[in-house]
Amino acid sequence: MLEKVVERIRRLGFGEEDARVLAGHFVAAEERGQAGHGLARVDWLEGLDGLQPGARPERVVAEEGFERWEARGALGYLVLAEIVRTQVESPPARARVVVAHECFPTGALGLWIRPLAEAGLCAWLTATSPARLAHPDGGPPLAGTNPLAIAVPASDGRPLVADVSMGAVTYGDVLAGRATSEELVPFGGPLAHKAFALAVGLEMLVEALAGPGHGALLVVAHPKTDPVPALRAAAAGRRLPGDR
Amino acid sequence: MLEKVVERIRRLGFGEEDARVLAGHFVAAEERGQAGHGLARVDWLEGLDGLQPGARPERVVAEEGFERWEARGALGYLVLAEIVRTQVESPPARARVVVAHECFPTGALGLWIRPLAEAGLCAWLTATSPARLAHPDGGPPLAGTNPLAIAVPASDGRPLVADVSMGAVTYGDVLAGRATSEELVPFGGPLAHKAFALAVGLEMLVEALAGPGHGALLVVAHPKTDPVPALRAAAAGRRLPGDR
Repeated sequence: MLEKVVERIRRLGFGEEDARVLAGHFVAAEERGQAGHGLARVDWLEGLDGLQPGARPERVVAEEGFERWEARGALGYLVLAEIVRTQVESPPARARVVVAHECFPTGALGLWIRPLAEAGLCAWLTATSPARLAHPDGGPPLAGTNPLAIAVPASDGRPLVADVSMGAVTYGDVLAGRATSEELVPFGGPLAHKAFALAVGLEMLVEALAGPGHGALLVVAHPKTDPVPALRAAAAGRRLPGDR
Repeated sequence: MLEKVVERIRRLGFGEEDARVLAGHFVAAEERGQAGHGLARVDWLEGLDGLQPGARPERVVAEEGFERWEARGALGYLVLAEIVRTQVESPPARARVVVAHECFPTGALGLWIRPLAEAGLCAWLTATSPARLAHPDGGPPLAGTNPLAIAVPASDGRPLVADVSMGAVTYGDVLAGRATSEELVPFGGPLAHKAFALAVGLEMLVEALAGPGHGALLVVAHPKTDPVPALRAAAAGRRLPGDR
């Protein structure tokens, strides 16, 4: 199945390596039940105007504690993959903030930062997307579903990887007909103002730091301690974020 | 009213400056309707064993992109106040990650980072507290209510300040009898696994970076653009996070 997806993406003009990154992401999202970020996105890519399969992201600021990346027309998936690869190869001594401008679409954020946790780094990633969430009191959409993902390594090899969208359903669910666009509201029911506040807070934070358009914000840092195994023991077999 | 609160805190042994920081926080929380972080906490301080009014936090690592603070027995409120003052006085050229070890209690996080936004800095702050949120499937409490606060400056002087606890009610509400401890669950109803994932994700992230015990994690960075006024215009008078 992976090879068939790689082949379809290759036919869109992507090189072998990029096609494998993209196909791997879509197949992994599908396997984890995040179908909105899964194989439906191959159809979506095939129908997309203005795809630039040869575009490469560029790291325009590279300091110990800060990096800025420009997508330069590359798909957000490939921008995040390149950023993560770069952090694993050249991790910060302590911590680093990374912003990416015009980084869209970004898919299932937890899948991108899992390799950072597997490399022993803590990571915190958010990314913005088209405005689909309205204020709980009504009006036009003001914020994307803006997921927040957090990955923390574990000495037992089972990192914690939380990945939470602020929407009650995903846009992929709407695209796939599993939900209506009326259901795409901040999650929380009577407490939806909480998820709305997180969505607009993350939206403004990313835009303020990365610049206009959709963007991504990553914080990567070395852990001092190893708290996940004790949490897992206390959870006594209950599923923790990121577990299959 | 403020002066009376200052006087009560002074009687606990705190110096004038610390007493004003604490009283200002409690009164501001009360005024903003966050009573769980408000004046009830003065009673709570008066009943606390082992208060060390003379303790001072110490910045034990101070780099351009990273700082580590030790509370050294100081109240978390005063640790955060000192960290914020330090960031305003010596902001990073681009971005900085700040961790605080044994930083508790921390109160209403949005109130601490608002001055950073007023000083033109973006800020993102989380802090952990005693485990009160259980897994949605049951079992013992595994995470604190672990709020996430985000502040983004605005050229019109009206920053966005989101401050969201992962609990459906606050522990302060339980203390004050306005809610039962059974109601202190991750918010979201049928989607409570989302708020639970954020709570445990933030819990593990802070403990991994700051070390055992309760801690805080702050990211502070210079904005490149000024997106809040346009959001405010699009919101057309609807209340945005942090507005009175």
